[in-house]
Amino acid sequence: MKAGPSQEEVRQHNLGALLRHVHYEGPTSRAVLAAGLGLNRSTILGLVGDLAAAGLVREELPQETGRAGRPSLVVSPEPARAHVLALDVGVERLSAALVGLGGVFLDRREHPWPDGPPQDPAEVAALLAGPAREMLARTPDGSTCVGVAAAVRGLVRHPDGLVGLTPNMGWKGVDLAGALTDRLRPDVPVLVANEANLGALAEHRRGIGRGSRNLVYLHGEIGIGAGVITAGELLRGERGYAGEIGHMTVNPHQGRPCGCGARGCLEAEAGERALLEAAGRDGRSTGSEAVRAVVTAADLGDVAARAALHRVGDWLGIGIANLANLFDPDLVVLGGTLRDVFLGSAAQVRSRINTNALAAVREQLRLRVSELGDDTVLIGAAELAFSEVLARPLETLARLSAR
Amino acid sequence: MKAGPSQEEVRQHNLGALLRHVHYEGPTSRAVLAAGLGLNRSTILGLVGDLAAAGLVREELPQETGRAGRPSLVVSPEPARAHVLALDVGVERLSAALVGLGGVFLDRREHPWPDGPPQDPAEVAALLAGPAREMLARTPDGSTCVGVAAAVRGLVRHPDGLVGLTPNMGWKGVDLAGALTDRLRPDVPVLVANEANLGALAEHRRGIGRGSRNLVYLHGEIGIGAGVITAGELLRGERGYAGEIGHMTVNPHQGRPCGCGARGCLEAEAGERALLEAAGRDGRSTGSEAVRAVVTAADLGDVAARAALHRVGDWLGIGIANLANLFDPDLVVLGGTLRDVFLGSAAQVRSRINTNALAAVREQLRLRVSELGDDTVLIGAAELAFSEVLARPLETLARLSAR
Repeated sequence: MKAGPSQEEVRQHNLGALLRHVHYEGPTSRAVLAAGLGLNRSTILGLVGDLAAAGLVREELPQETGRAGRPSLVVSPEPARAHVLALDVGVERLSAALVGLGGVFLDRREHPWPDGPPQDPAEVAALLAGPAREMLARTPDGSTCVGVAAAVRGLVRHPDGLVGLTPNMGWKGVDLAGALTDRLRPDVPVLVANEANLGALAEHRRGIGRGSRNLVYLHGEIGIGAGVITAGELLRGERGYAGEIGHMTVNPHQGRPCGCGARGCLEAEAGERALLEAAGRDGRSTGSEAVRAVVTAADLGDVAARAALHRVGDWLGIGIANLANLFDPDLVVLGGTLRDVFLGSAAQVRSRINTNALAAVREQLRLRVSELGDDTVLIGAAELAFSEVLARPLETLARLSAR
Repeated sequence: MKAGPSQEEVRQHNLGALLRHVHYEGPTSRAVLAAGLGLNRSTILGLVGDLAAAGLVREELPQETGRAGRPSLVVSPEPARAHVLALDVGVERLSAALVGLGGVFLDRREHPWPDGPPQDPAEVAALLAGPAREMLARTPDGSTCVGVAAAVRGLVRHPDGLVGLTPNMGWKGVDLAGALTDRLRPDVPVLVANEANLGALAEHRRGIGRGSRNLVYLHGEIGIGAGVITAGELLRGERGYAGEIGHMTVNPHQGRPCGCGARGCLEAEAGERALLEAAGRDGRSTGSEAVRAVVTAADLGDVAARAALHRVGDWLGIGIANLANLFDPDLVVLGGTLRDVFLGSAAQVRSRINTNALAAVREQLRLRVSELGDDTVLIGAAELAFSEVLARPLETLARLSAR
């Protein structure tokens, strides 16, 4: 029951709203900004002036419109004024990107780890720090680093980013943010978040979930995680652990054992290992290529691969039906290796949803695969890193430029 | 990306924040209000003056404090200035209450229906209208009716309140709000909501969930429903259907058939009918007394009753573990007949949660039974009905008093 904001807080809010608009929508005319933000044109003029003076936006002539008359200026985000560092500690590789305002990828590096990620957090921090420092050294003159964020596969406590558990890397209680801060010494706090939450953020802000206020993003790699957007906001829960759909029990008595110690969790029934074993593949070779090979084999008529996709699609459908009944989303987005799994088992998934989700929740539910491809999580990390400057643009920039 | 509020919007917001504070917390000194709302004392003075002039609050001497010196005035809500009508279309009875500001029950009526609720919505509206009109005719002089809300067991579309499906009453697409408006002709819109969502609201605002920002309320009657509070707000989903935990599939292959057409839904495994049948009771006689009889029999050593509670507690634990993994709440509240079921099966429920919920989410999870008793849903309906006046007190009152 907090009191409402002061005049100055309102102005900061409006600066942030305008910057967010052009960050996500790209070049926008003042008239459209006024309509979109519900402000009059003179207020917009003042806000644009302040942001332009700080170098965060520029005004320019639009692309040729083909219409007669003097074209109206458009406001664009300035990617060379503020940038973030986005890091993704993946199962198959480490990815790092330097991303400018507006979501422009200015630079990127990949570091594959064919034998899986290092078990030692310090080694991961060292591997992250190398390309990060290289990229930061080559940022445009006059550009300020406004955020650093890293994605990990596991439970991440909110808001301090302590990595509680990463089943596939054996981490428990790891302060990755601290290790990165020690090596990079950035002027901003290093944020750490769960990969599926960042995937949901990316799809909601820049992917197929734009415009949706209630979506579930399902990310498949070795495990299955979910990021949930409800009423336009990321669902975090009390400690930041919400969305652990991989450990939703769907088959308690006859189920396969799960890494978490329980039996019949969704990821035990519908995860990569379940698919590869059901298809008669060597259970030790997992990963996106192994999954894709099963889907391709099924397309070519491989009976075991088809049966495996049918079986996994059935469990995936049960999982999505449960999410639909619990969250009533209008959109479920499948990302990571679940893209391929879904494309190979869509009929079975939909059939199960038709049986197990209530008619009212499934009737207008859309199922889609991620359009951001392998960059979903990295894009989400960049958006998390931008959140401070997008909330309080001038304050943030003034604070960081003064250092 | 809406712009921030105007000065006048901020003032309306602050009036609402102050009224909500005393509505929920009761008599509060100006100093505590200033601290709680983050406003200075002169602003508080102005807000209290405006609300007092409208008759919504009064200032008075506090109860004897035992401390020396001139006691500071406290601000109290005025239950005789604004009231709401709360209605609950239950499985065993119809309940209606006239509730004054501050949550004071001014009057209440019960209408048991031993043979279950009428199937005809018009008949339900007629039965609700009788006691409602009687109570409204006897409201205090000068009191304004600021809201009417009704709870139903079933899917309710948000925000229009269309009752999509009530499995136990055979309704589908019923405009109960319209039927009540026709009979009562109130000056305010009639709101209709799902019983578990209202239970969650009640527990969060006035029950054991006060102070929690992430809680799940589980309501048991014939079915099982959930109301979820995340980050302090009721989770609604895209159409208002979120929280249908009763139809979360937990036993897809060997499960009992469910009224929804699927198999192995949580309410098919852990609902009243499952309990009574497992205990060897006549499956047709359900309800709170039948459930309580099983729990009492188990206490007295009835082997079948004990086994039934063990079995149902096991499924309930799986359901709660799934909710914990998905929502990461700090509190799960059991209400309706689940209060008794939980008291008779707590060990089994907890044991299952220990196996099936991730350690990080279960470690600080509290399980509690509702303290609001049989009134939980009715109190939630009253709080929903108060929401308009608590958001914009003076605007709402001025509009309604002008009629």
